[in-house]
Amino acid sequence: MRDIAVFSGSAHPELAREVCAHLGVPLSPTRVSRFANDCLEVQLQANCRERDVFLIQPLVRPVQEHLVELLMMCDAARGASAGRITVVMPHYSYARSDKKDAPRISLGGRLVADLLVAAGASRVLAMTLHAPQVHGFFSVPVDHLHALRELAAHFRQYDLTRTTVVSPDLGNAKEAAAFARLIGAQVAAGAKQRFADDRVSISSVIGEVAGRDVIVLDDEIAKGSTVLELLDRLRESGPRSIRVACTHGLFAAGALKRLSEQPDVLEIVCTNTVPVAEGEHTDKLRVLSIAPALAEAVRRIHNGESVSALFDEPRG
Amino acid sequence: MRDIAVFSGSAHPELAREVCAHLGVPLSPTRVSRFANDCLEVQLQANCRERDVFLIQPLVRPVQEHLVELLMMCDAARGASAGRITVVMPHYSYARSDKKDAPRISLGGRLVADLLVAAGASRVLAMTLHAPQVHGFFSVPVDHLHALRELAAHFRQYDLTRTTVVSPDLGNAKEAAAFARLIGAQVAAGAKQRFADDRVSISSVIGEVAGRDVIVLDDEIAKGSTVLELLDRLRESGPRSIRVACTHGLFAAGALKRLSEQPDVLEIVCTNTVPVAEGEHTDKLRVLSIAPALAEAVRRIHNGESVSALFDEPRG
Amino acid sequence: MRDIAVFSGSAHPELAREVCAHLGVPLSPTRVSRFANDCLEVQLQANCRERDVFLIQPLVRPVQEHLVELLMMCDAARGASAGRITVVMPHYSYARSDKKDAPRISLGGRLVADLLVAAGASRVLAMTLHAPQVHGFFSVPVDHLHALRELAAHFRQYDLTRTTVVSPDLGNAKEAAAFARLIGAQVAAGAKQRFADDRVSISSVIGEVAGRDVIVLDDEIAKGSTVLELLDRLRESGPRSIRVACTHGLFAAGALKRLSEQPDVLEIVCTNTVPVAEGEHTDKLRVLSIAPALAEAVRRIHNGESVSALFDEPRG
Amino acid sequence: MRDIAVFSGSAHPELAREVCAHLGVPLSPTRVSRFANDCLEVQLQANCRERDVFLIQPLVRPVQEHLVELLMMCDAARGASAGRITVVMPHYSYARSDKKDAPRISLGGRLVADLLVAAGASRVLAMTLHAPQVHGFFSVPVDHLHALRELAAHFRQYDLTRTTVVSPDLGNAKEAAAFARLIGAQVAAGAKQRFADDRVSISSVIGEVAGRDVIVLDDEIAKGSTVLELLDRLRESGPRSIRVACTHGLFAAGALKRLSEQPDVLEIVCTNTVPVAEGEHTDKLRVLSIAPALAEAVRRIHNGESVSALFDEPRG
Amino acid sequence: MRDIAVFSGSAHPELAREVCAHLGVPLSPTRVSRFANDCLEVQLQANCRERDVFLIQPLVRPVQEHLVELLMMCDAARGASAGRITVVMPHYSYARSDKKDAPRISLGGRLVADLLVAAGASRVLAMTLHAPQVHGFFSVPVDHLHALRELAAHFRQYDLTRTTVVSPDLGNAKEAAAFARLIGAQVAAGAKQRFADDRVSISSVIGEVAGRDVIVLDDEIAKGSTVLELLDRLRESGPRSIRVACTHGLFAAGALKRLSEQPDVLEIVCTNTVPVAEGEHTDKLRVLSIAPALAEAVRRIHNGESVSALFDEPRG
Amino acid sequence: MRDIAVFSGSAHPELAREVCAHLGVPLSPTRVSRFANDCLEVQLQANCRERDVFLIQPLVRPVQEHLVELLMMCDAARGASAGRITVVMPHYSYARSDKKDAPRISLGGRLVADLLVAAGASRVLAMTLHAPQVHGFFSVPVDHLHALRELAAHFRQYDLTRTTVVSPDLGNAKEAAAFARLIGAQVAAGAKQRFADDRVSISSVIGEVAGRDVIVLDDEIAKGSTVLELLDRLRESGPRSIRVACTHGLFAAGALKRLSEQPDVLEIVCTNTVPVAEGEHTDKLRVLSIAPALAEAVRRIHNGESVSALFDEPRG
Repeated sequence: MRDIAVFSGSAHPELAREVCAHLGVPLSPTRVSRFANDCLEVQLQANCRERDVFLIQPLVRPVQEHLVELLMMCDAARGASAGRITVVMPHYSYARSDKKDAPRISLGGRLVADLLVAAGASRVLAMTLHAPQVHGFFSVPVDHLHALRELAAHFRQYDLTRTTVVSPDLGNAKEAAAFARLIGAQVAAGAKQRFADDRVSISSVIGEVAGRDVIVLDDEIAKGSTVLELLDRLRESGPRSIRVACTHGLFAAGALKRLSEQPDVLEIVCTNTVPVAEGEHTDKLRVLSIAPALAEAVRRIHNGESVSALFDEPRG
Repeated sequence: MRDIAVFSGSAHPELAREVCAHLGVPLSPTRVSRFANDCLEVQLQANCRERDVFLIQPLVRPVQEHLVELLMMCDAARGASAGRITVVMPHYSYARSDKKDAPRISLGGRLVADLLVAAGASRVLAMTLHAPQVHGFFSVPVDHLHALRELAAHFRQYDLTRTTVVSPDLGNAKEAAAFARLIGAQVAAGAKQRFADDRVSISSVIGEVAGRDVIVLDDEIAKGSTVLELLDRLRESGPRSIRVACTHGLFAAGALKRLSEQPDVLEIVCTNTVPVAEGEHTDKLRVLSIAPALAEAVRRIHNGESVSALFDEPRG
Repeated sequence: MRDIAVFSGSAHPELAREVCAHLGVPLSPTRVSRFANDCLEVQLQANCRERDVFLIQPLVRPVQEHLVELLMMCDAARGASAGRITVVMPHYSYARSDKKDAPRISLGGRLVADLLVAAGASRVLAMTLHAPQVHGFFSVPVDHLHALRELAAHFRQYDLTRTTVVSPDLGNAKEAAAFARLIGAQVAAGAKQRFADDRVSISSVIGEVAGRDVIVLDDEIAKGSTVLELLDRLRESGPRSIRVACTHGLFAAGALKRLSEQPDVLEIVCTNTVPVAEGEHTDKLRVLSIAPALAEAVRRIHNGESVSALFDEPRG
Repeated sequence: MRDIAVFSGSAHPELAREVCAHLGVPLSPTRVSRFANDCLEVQLQANCRERDVFLIQPLVRPVQEHLVELLMMCDAARGASAGRITVVMPHYSYARSDKKDAPRISLGGRLVADLLVAAGASRVLAMTLHAPQVHGFFSVPVDHLHALRELAAHFRQYDLTRTTVVSPDLGNAKEAAAFARLIGAQVAAGAKQRFADDRVSISSVIGEVAGRDVIVLDDEIAKGSTVLELLDRLRESGPRSIRVACTHGLFAAGALKRLSEQPDVLEIVCTNTVPVAEGEHTDKLRVLSIAPALAEAVRRIHNGESVSALFDEPRG
Repeated sequence: MRDIAVFSGSAHPELAREVCAHLGVPLSPTRVSRFANDCLEVQLQANCRERDVFLIQPLVRPVQEHLVELLMMCDAARGASAGRITVVMPHYSYARSDKKDAPRISLGGRLVADLLVAAGASRVLAMTLHAPQVHGFFSVPVDHLHALRELAAHFRQYDLTRTTVVSPDLGNAKEAAAFARLIGAQVAAGAKQRFADDRVSISSVIGEVAGRDVIVLDDEIAKGSTVLELLDRLRESGPRSIRVACTHGLFAAGALKRLSEQPDVLEIVCTNTVPVAEGEHTDKLRVLSIAPALAEAVRRIHNGESVSALFDEPRG
Repeated sequence: MRDIAVFSGSAHPELAREVCAHLGVPLSPTRVSRFANDCLEVQLQANCRERDVFLIQPLVRPVQEHLVELLMMCDAARGASAGRITVVMPHYSYARSDKKDAPRISLGGRLVADLLVAAGASRVLAMTLHAPQVHGFFSVPVDHLHALRELAAHFRQYDLTRTTVVSPDLGNAKEAAAFARLIGAQVAAGAKQRFADDRVSISSVIGEVAGRDVIVLDDEIAKGSTVLELLDRLRESGPRSIRVACTHGLFAAGALKRLSEQPDVLEIVCTNTVPVAEGEHTDKLRVLSIAPALAEAVRRIHNGESVSALFDEPRG
């Protein structure tokens, strides 16, 4: 089998290092230069010839910088005769741009998928895509992991007998339903009516939450406005306790602080698919590592073993 | 502007004729032959050179025959130097195959999209795709119409003040929510847990239905099992009345008869995106024509006018 | 070398099992599901990652079902990260659609070749294509086997000293000429004038058949009308005996029965590239197995050995 | 409609001029330069922007020079923003390389088709392709003309009541059969056994030629060895008269002289799809012009009119 | 002819407005949104169907933001059925990444060209590319304008009889030579030895500069280090006067201020292909507008007129 | 690792044999046939299946013949299921056609790169491309070798303390500068003004050459006119000695004889990237072999080792 070579862009080197530690392979160095005219140049600083190359880069803020950097990493690996190029995107933020809900808009989720292939990606390893259909935006094979097992392992420390998993969005409730099944809980959802990107109004919660231990589950929390509005609705029904969980804890614009300041929110749980800024951590935050899962997936991809066998639960 | 040429495959010539009547252009003849070895051959029997060609074919039973026929129509039009080839699919049944919910399965929604482009399609006009993300499966421009306006016009004959629109599926509730907004109604949804293709169990309905006039709305009704199970759940809450509506009334395996036999179902409403077999009509069935909408979209596409302007409501 | 994985579609599992037996590898299971809306879904039920995947499916009746199924098998294998996907088509029925003999018709032989590549096929193994030029319709490598050696081995049990091989069609006589060379016989051909698909008139036989032991050889026999008309012409010249042979014995519309009822036809020989329905067998039919040849070709493809070395005779 | 712009490569400018005269449009100048390192450069010396560009170049000796020149003409037209690029190849010599009759050989007919598309060709206008299947080698639309009408018009000056059209090759006899139908004659064919490219032996003629007025018809005559051997076989049967006809009169290696020296050959007829060298003309040669047919096809392609309507006879 | 529609990204709307004013067409509005997760979405706010769409965006700081925005504009226009999409890049900064001068680096100039095509660009209008070979990085037609005429018009106000045009770089001296010819001056060049991106040492000036009126000409001035080092070398030879000119005045990191502070630099001339920040203007700066040239090129592209006719001077 | 298979076209079999000798692998035979109609056919006469195939062919006179032959070798290897196809072009003559310096011309450097990929090339090994940007014309990985080390090794036999390397062309002086660095010499360049392909006038030499030992270095010498004119200019400055060196010694139209007849030219040095005709050798010619360098690069490519490590000098 071809040797493995793992590179990290500048988006989340800590995660890449952790994945490599689990794999027992070195993280090969990447040099990213910025010219005086603000153009980037990427150099992969280890032999790629015929190697099984993995490029780790979640598309986090600044997204455009990290995206172009990733495209250049693909291009450099292809030009350097990589045997196979797997893009490892623990967070594919553009997956949220998955539909044409207004005329003449870009469809970022599909466009970026096409750009990655145009730049040389032979396959993709992604985690908790915003919608399962995003898989079909890629013309190359995708391995799609979920963090539900990591989240479930965390919550199993609690008594889950009166738990309801609440999805903030009807349209994304399948993930919550799958998670609820996994931990033996009920499911509920907010009936969100979205007026614009930054003004969201949730009219009601459908499902039973009164007196329940609520786990609000979303794929990604950015500004947190959706969750905050959902909390207002939930409180009207009198839940027994509230916890908030997500895979991708972006926590933009002070979201983590604002959520932590909600007195009835006991805990905020996310994974390390994206880096959490040092100064932003709060006491209520728990960050679970998905590095072991990513490393195991990389190992299986490299060895030609089944990745679907990683999941012991039919996916939602 | 290039002349228009409209052809119909054998799936639904009545609809094609109706669209042409609204457009005021003739339906050009298509010859579909079957050789002794069961292979098909398609001949478009009118000049296609530099024409703006529209090929009308919903992917209905027998789906594979109609799909291959459509691919051959594309190929024939391309080989005959069509100026542009728009595939008009009032029903894109493979849109339901939109995610990889098991390992090593085909992703029909994306595959068929790629096949159409490989066969020569330059653009697609579709109606009520199962999920809005399916738009992103196509590498060519898609115009995506909805039948909500036609359905709304029909239901506005009734008193809608106590109406709740119920989606059988949490994951598809956005369409129901958009329809509810359009007619000023509330929304509810079944929390469906799918075990396999033919065994579906709905555990509960989330949202208010007791004493309400319920409109069950789905994009497609095939065997109707989902709707029938939903009706059982709804009855437990005591709705005031029940109507069933969908865009694509496939009504397979006696579904129409079974639904009509439910005494508390007052009406079953669908559109003519797919043909309803003569012998299967029942008294409760109302079939609304989307031919005027399709014709108007074709006219605008042909003339280079905005199609999005057809919608006076932001899409779900 | 990558491991081999062999799958069969639903067209001819017996042949696939026989090929696997010769190869000494298991036939991996395939699940083909049909949804209520008549759409298909294929699941390959064995790990495909980095495997050398072979998909066995002759395009026999119902051709469109088997074609779409095969396209989905390709798509599933590609999505599951197969190392290489070889489509094994013992009968490529669409090879007959190889020319534009009328304006604005589909060119099925080329179109289906393109569809297979669009669906993920990396190479093709075919048998007795209707015309050798069909090889050039594929943009991926093709290995093209012939059944002439199997047919020759069968006929060598007879006295071949006064034998004439007769092609029903001038345009396809090269295959008959190659076969005649192989068994040391003469060649003749019908001068067929084709008016339409189902009305064929043969004006004459060119070449010597009077008092000869005639072997009528065609690539495919479907309805058999061509052969039956040729027999009428042959009888006018008084052949000593008549045998009928072909690679692909489709025998549609009672063809086998009608041919067997010809009293002067001593034998009808075909191969098992296509399945012969149980109830249709007659006493005069001899079915030769090409499974050993297919297995040997698969073995050589998998091992990177020369396939052309399989042929000890320059191809016609 | 976009303006037309016609360019000629250096292969056959006389034909291009004649086509333009029939079209009533000027022949735009092309500059072909050869650098000191033997590389070519092509400049199209008239505005191509948004024009409907036609590039006329038969692939005649020196074939490789003319092919690369044609590829560069396509590239130059594409780079100059041509609206559409139609390659007019009155003689596609590589069509003869249409099958893999030995292992590991190039398939020139398909390769050159792909190269033309890679260089920018949007469509092709060809004449009398060696085999009708070659149509399917192109991934862009092809209009395929035949010179049978021109040849028929010429031969109708004679008494055709006892005429037999003889194809030198069984495998190519369909064209002869179509021509025979067109002029109301019979058909016969040589049973050619090809040992190598330059050593051909014809074992017999199948069909009736004794006492008949024979027209030997081939698509292309290059060295003429095949025809000369066929003449030997024909003479054994005592034909009443012999004429030789073809579409593409390449006449390599003194072929025209040798054929003309056959005392019983009354006439050699070809068309001007390829240029006949000045010094090689003989008294027996008749060159028919296909410029009017090409010009009419170009006119119809440019105007979006049916080209198939040019043929009043179903094609063989 | 299709209607024209001009859109501007957020990189340089002033230039777009100026171009539109010269064209006499409105600048159609573009909405660029940024989601909470830092992803962009672009909406073209005017009908694009069948329109001749022009997207104006120089790739200036922040380059990656403007690049992704431009890719999304292409994608939105393509999805909205634009008839043709011309990317107008007055400054293609990635053209500088045009060679592999270290192993395993990205080749930005080619990569970005491929990304633009993958996103839907049908053609490109560029200005003063860093090297003429960059033209060949694009697989779609490129119109390549130069600002030499604008620069020449400006400098003709001076006495040019003792002028020498100096290129800072031997490898890029052809542009300077062309400009020198245009204004009847001599040419010289710095023999630059580049050690790394930010440390450049010029060893000598080859050509005559003593007592001459020097115009230092480069395609782009970013940090200005190269020009500053060249000035040191020039001063050793005693030029009579010094002026500095370039097409793309990026002036990063205080370059404009530093250059303006050189007492012997009389004037700094650039064009408005890129925006100059308000607060950075100095007395010595002269900004020439290339909007009339861009507008004329757009007009000719739209009307299918020759763009090369814009140049009365053979290009370098 | 896959086995290696090396084939040579007819352009330079001596070099191929030498490379194979260094590699210790046999040169597999290639059969190139020419049909009577001047079309070529290529047969690779050794098994290619899954092999790592290398095709050696410099594009030398007759360039078009050798180019088409090479394209057919690619096609044959692809059709024969080669595992990987590396085109080894020791001389890529079309690299000189690298810019659009006139309207509506072909861009041969990019076109031929695209044709090679269309024919099946998976990667390219090139030597001393005319401009480093040509690398970016290829959409497949390129390994770009230089002959500077071989040339330096040769010249180090002389006293180099007063040496100046002179590039005939400002635009190509970077290569000369890199070579000068390698041997510790100075650099100068001719300021060439090119009027047309065959009329070149050099106005002056910029840099110090009086009393120096001059090495004129160009990438390719064809007709030698540029070098001869440069010599006239150099003589005006009184160099101490003159030697001429290049990588590609094409020596067209008696160039070698003319250069050798210059009494003050002490030596003419080139490499064997192209064959030198037997009868043209002169006493002053020294041909250095780059076969060891090519063989080492092929070995590393085959073994997946770094090729850049071959260079101990940063490339120009």
